[in-house]
Amino acid sequence: MRLDIAVLGGDGIGPEVVAQSLKCLRSVEETFGHTFKFKKALIGAEAMDKKGSPLPDETLKICKNSDAILFGAIGMPQYDGNPDSKIWPEQGLLKLRKELDLFANIRPVKVFPALIRQSPLNKKVIQHTDLVIYRELSGGIYYGNKSMDSGTNIATDTCSYSEDEISRITHLAFKAAKNRRKKVTLVDKANVLETSRLWRRVVKSISKSYPDIELETLFIDNAAVQMILNPSQFDVILTDNMFGDILSDQGSVTAGSIGLLPSASVGTEYAMFEPIHGSYPDAKDKNIANPVAAILSAGMLLQHFKLNEEADALVAAVLKSFSKKIVTPDIMGSSKYGTDYVGDFIADNIM
Amino acid sequence: MRLDIAVLGGDGIGPEVVAQSLKCLRSVEETFGHTFKFKKALIGAEAMDKKGSPLPDETLKICKNSDAILFGAIGMPQYDGNPDSKIWPEQGLLKLRKELDLFANIRPVKVFPALIRQSPLNKKVIQHTDLVIYRELSGGIYYGNKSMDSGTNIATDTCSYSEDEISRITHLAFKAAKNRRKKVTLVDKANVLETSRLWRRVVKSISKSYPDIELETLFIDNAAVQMILNPSQFDVILTDNMFGDILSDQGSVTAGSIGLLPSASVGTEYAMFEPIHGSYPDAKDKNIANPVAAILSAGMLLQHFKLNEEADALVAAVLKSFSKKIVTPDIMGSSKYGTDYVGDFIADNIM
Ligand SMILES: CC(C)[C@H](C(=O)O)[C@@H](O)C(=O)O
Ligand SMILES: CC(C)[C@H](C(=O)O)[C@@H](O)C(=O)O
Repeated sequence: MRLDIAVLGGDGIGPEVVAQSLKCLRSVEETFGHTFKFKKALIGAEAMDKKGSPLPDETLKICKNSDAILFGAIGMPQYDGNPDSKIWPEQGLLKLRKELDLFANIRPVKVFPALIRQSPLNKKVIQHTDLVIYRELSGGIYYGNKSMDSGTNIATDTCSYSEDEISRITHLAFKAAKNRRKKVTLVDKANVLETSRLWRRVVKSISKSYPDIELETLFIDNAAVQMILNPSQFDVILTDNMFGDILSDQGSVTAGSIGLLPSASVGTEYAMFEPIHGSYPDAKDKNIANPVAAILSAGMLLQHFKLNEEADALVAAVLKSFSKKIVTPDIMGSSKYGTDYVGDFIADNIM
Repeated sequence: MRLDIAVLGGDGIGPEVVAQSLKCLRSVEETFGHTFKFKKALIGAEAMDKKGSPLPDETLKICKNSDAILFGAIGMPQYDGNPDSKIWPEQGLLKLRKELDLFANIRPVKVFPALIRQSPLNKKVIQHTDLVIYRELSGGIYYGNKSMDSGTNIATDTCSYSEDEISRITHLAFKAAKNRRKKVTLVDKANVLETSRLWRRVVKSISKSYPDIELETLFIDNAAVQMILNPSQFDVILTDNMFGDILSDQGSVTAGSIGLLPSASVGTEYAMFEPIHGSYPDAKDKNIANPVAAILSAGMLLQHFKLNEEADALVAAVLKSFSKKIVTPDIMGSSKYGTDYVGDFIADNIM
């Protein structure tokens, strides 16, 4: 198979972890006889510095002309810590998601047996965790009208959802549940928000066409607790943009490190693959960032194109790195292995 | 001292846990020679059934004529599970907070040494946790314009904050930090939300008048992780209505049970005291609900009126119940002690 892949390293540790994904995809290419063409493009703070925009037109064009996008991370404290600046790096990512209509952000959370001791949580509590979050990614309060009235000093954000926006991701979530443990948990705040009440109505009505799937609803405040106390109760979690952001980061506590969790952002035309972790500027260029989340995101890219054998080989190589303890210090404090070394090890073991 | 206290048990386990607070306040009354007048009033589902409104006028009047309010819990699944109903119990609580202008919800999270083993988290991680959340309670997305357009099928919630709304709770938070470990952490999503950016601007500017207090900012997704991984890093957390709702429930994981955490909701004229837990309808009338959060809320009421010796005596009685293992089953699975028994024990030991 030939795939054109746009590569957007972004800010902080983004470029160095994505470099490891590329090594792994190169290894898949050789082992399985595919052709992957990589095209790098600027986004985020670097794009602001070099092109004056966090999402230059050229980058968007490269993404639109590719079969898939590998994304690193975004955000630099000198920009997002300053509420007076008019543009900031994250706007590049938000605009990209919107332009490509990437409406579903799929975030699996699994506990790897070899790493179970890394989680600060009870082994008993987490050992059977295997859930996937379907986070709506192109609507909600992230994209509603915003305003800052300098006369009244009132700032406003608007959260809107249409039935169609809810409907399309709901179908994806129920279809995913069919091939899993057949349970969907809708997380919302329907006791307060009008948008949540529309989510409940739409999801309940759609659930009737999936009679073999159990639907459960949970308020976000309770869900945030359950995610820690008893994450194995979940199969598919369906939720809006903001709640999905919070819940999926929390999932990293269960997994043992935020450096482990991959994600896929999909729409009808495009698909982007990115680790859920942020840009961690403090770790930049120190060769300590965990590349596994980025590498597993490349694995989700392979799955997306039905290259399942290839994806399995990549995951097997990751598991081997865990069992051989070839891991970065976030996983094992005493580990001396760097980002590069772990990336090489995993790439070399894809077979 | 004479205090008129409105008592709003509310839904689910609310009335039975508040009944235990009343026992404790009666005991304080006798031991220390005060006069507490209690006046019960309806709110939530029961008020809807009996008076057609989740906050009857009479209840509001009783609250306004009292020195303080003891509140239980609110919410019944037959109402809030139904997105088609036009009124639901929670509206009673939201309206009450607004009418009384209770703008600051103060939620302390402490780990009790006697209960440290109850937390699913690492002892090392949590043992020094002693933080307090200042959650803005009368603004934000809870109170902004809401709409549901049945033509377009678009639902909308609006999140607004004015400089004044942010300013008044910020001053409370910084003042609290002065008497504590001198650190305020502002939790927001300033890389996405306009309201968060206003919060940052206002809080940063106010922080200049508190030069001995350190100000730190954290995005909500990261804060939700830090709350579990390293809660002892926090002293005072300052945040908006929605983020405060989520973060404070998460704090209960650290404490070991959501049945332990009290709160005070204060404004310039009124003050209300309520456990942070919900109405848990499944536990209603089973004599298994943990009364400690409600009892400690009564303790915060005493502190509010500078009855510090009295509050200390109440807290000492609670600690005694822990060390004697007179606790409900949420704390110790094998415990045979009921809500009533634990309430009696604590009340009897206030001396
Ligand atoms: C960088 C930020 C805008 C982004 C988000 O909130 O969506 C990130 O936290 C994520 O989860 O992908
Ligand atoms: C019942 C509900 C409306 C309420 C809230 O979200 O404020 C509750 O969760 C709380 O935290 O007091």
